[in-house]
Amino acid sequence: MTEIPSLNAPYLLYLGDSSKVLDIKTARGIAKWRPELCLGELKRPNCQTSLDLPNLSLNEAIAKGVKTLVIGLANSGGRISSLWHEDIKSALKSGLDVASGLHAKLSDNEELVALAKTHNCRLIDLRDTKGINHIGNGIKRSGKRILTVGTDCSVGKMYTALAITNEMKAQDFKVTFAATGQTGVFIEGTGVCIDAVVADFMSGAVEQVTPEVENDHWQIVEGQGSLFNPSFAGVSMSLLHGSQPDYLVLCHEAGRKNIKDLQGYPVPSLEECLALNLTTARLTNPNVKLVGISLNTRLLTPEEAGAYIAEIEEKFQVPCFDPMRTGVERFVSQLER
Amino acid sequence: MTEIPSLNAPYLLYLGDSSKVLDIKTARGIAKWRPELCLGELKRPNCQTSLDLPNLSLNEAIAKGVKTLVIGLANSGGRISSLWHEDIKSALKSGLDVASGLHAKLSDNEELVALAKTHNCRLIDLRDTKGINHIGNGIKRSGKRILTVGTDCSVGKMYTALAITNEMKAQDFKVTFAATGQTGVFIEGTGVCIDAVVADFMSGAVEQVTPEVENDHWQIVEGQGSLFNPSFAGVSMSLLHGSQPDYLVLCHEAGRKNIKDLQGYPVPSLEECLALNLTTARLTNPNVKLVGISLNTRLLTPEEAGAYIAEIEEKFQVPCFDPMRTGVERFVSQLER
Repeated sequence: MTEIPSLNAPYLLYLGDSSKVLDIKTARGIAKWRPELCLGELKRPNCQTSLDLPNLSLNEAIAKGVKTLVIGLANSGGRISSLWHEDIKSALKSGLDVASGLHAKLSDNEELVALAKTHNCRLIDLRDTKGINHIGNGIKRSGKRILTVGTDCSVGKMYTALAITNEMKAQDFKVTFAATGQTGVFIEGTGVCIDAVVADFMSGAVEQVTPEVENDHWQIVEGQGSLFNPSFAGVSMSLLHGSQPDYLVLCHEAGRKNIKDLQGYPVPSLEECLALNLTTARLTNPNVKLVGISLNTRLLTPEEAGAYIAEIEEKFQVPCFDPMRTGVERFVSQLER
Repeated sequence: MTEIPSLNAPYLLYLGDSSKVLDIKTARGIAKWRPELCLGELKRPNCQTSLDLPNLSLNEAIAKGVKTLVIGLANSGGRISSLWHEDIKSALKSGLDVASGLHAKLSDNEELVALAKTHNCRLIDLRDTKGINHIGNGIKRSGKRILTVGTDCSVGKMYTALAITNEMKAQDFKVTFAATGQTGVFIEGTGVCIDAVVADFMSGAVEQVTPEVENDHWQIVEGQGSLFNPSFAGVSMSLLHGSQPDYLVLCHEAGRKNIKDLQGYPVPSLEECLALNLTTARLTNPNVKLVGISLNTRLLTPEEAGAYIAEIEEKFQVPCFDPMRTGVERFVSQLER
């Protein structure tokens, strides 16, 4: 069983020649959740985005203690632009690790591999999962686990898991965030991009990301996809089986009608979504239960959002919240210690 | 979207230095289902197994028209033994394609890659799925599809699908077997090992294996794993979503108590298994229904088997059969044309 890689912090965030906020989604996520890890940003002259971090040269970054250049941007197709190439080479020559979550692999480039070797630093491809080959065994592990599940992709499963993790830390729980996607892995410094794992090893990879811990230690597991999104439901199922959740937090975007990027697939009702997630999760943890509902209410007015959250809470009889609007303090304070 | 590779038949089956029947499971499957494709076997001097095919040298095989040497055996770990290596090289030098379903890839060996290039032949690694990168879209496709699903792994899903395909051909249906595992792909000459695909592309790969066909054309889809096997359930779910089955055939081994290779996981009841498979399949085909139950009764006496099949048929009100004991003629004759 291969060890899951871990990243060396702090980071210099590479924004390259990005022109739109969406291009640097990954870097933004890291800077939002782990500002203390992000010492600066590195850009090409024509870059039109910023995270309002210090604009550092490689030498300045190294003087400040940076250990890893994080490719914090994406282009369509997940390729490594030739423009970025020179900057990546310079970083390696300076002795920095370079880490990427793109589909294209840094380590497929022989020049970069040779440079990394010469300068004794690492190329880390988060989506290179060929070492991940543990078959899930379903053996019960100690510790407590919350998994975020959703009615669809991009409804707030990572955001919710991170907000809960931070609030639990603030309330003195023993707690770890279990990262299962690229932004999450950069934020936590370790984890696995589950959607890049070979199918046979999905639930096994989730088991590796959520290992046995002490009974009073919590793992907050970043969910992926949805059982109701036919593109990615198998990944969601592997998360339910591999993480053996004690508790589910159901995530939903209020007002979304259709499954993202697909035609003819309505978003399921919360009841239907919850029922199938519980049925599925019971296979590896018969005691699983719903512990909260996270509602992304960005499409609603504040008044509508308040009414909707109250309505769902009344219906499901668990704490409901919008992590961006209401925070998760009340939710966390109601968790059984 | 990459084309799914297809194999050139007929085959010479390579049995190497195998010592046990289980070592040559793949070759046996091909020889059983496609005897007309299997012109001979190639063995090392110490080989202790046989499929009772002509023992051919490479020259004899080529004279008979063989196009591909199929690595029909496996060792633990799926490695390519150094003993086999010389034979693979000789085959390439003779101009044969060489195909393998092992975890280890022929194409990772530079010497083999160079030889294949020199001699203008192909190295085909069925588990090399890096070209498979279509994201499932769930768009309805014409044609009729039967998917075999199971209470566990190794209960007869491939056998059942192949038996149904052959019988449908005999009864003049337009029908294709859709292969999703290595033995199935060798048998059909095309297909994808779904369990080797990157997680994000599983249901998309199933869509590629079961493309749009004419309304009266049937695809019989080889199932994998089980929704109740926590090691592989995500793969099974992708098959349910990607193949959009009109009909399910539920496969079960009578008398099996526990999920294969796992502890603490009982085999589900047929009722429970059917319910979750139907719920899951309805996402991409709301009209899906159970059309038959395939019972592997190898652990029962003929009398017990007959009684059990009758009991299950009475309970579920669909044709029940053991493809090895009763055949599938009655089942196929009851399909709606």
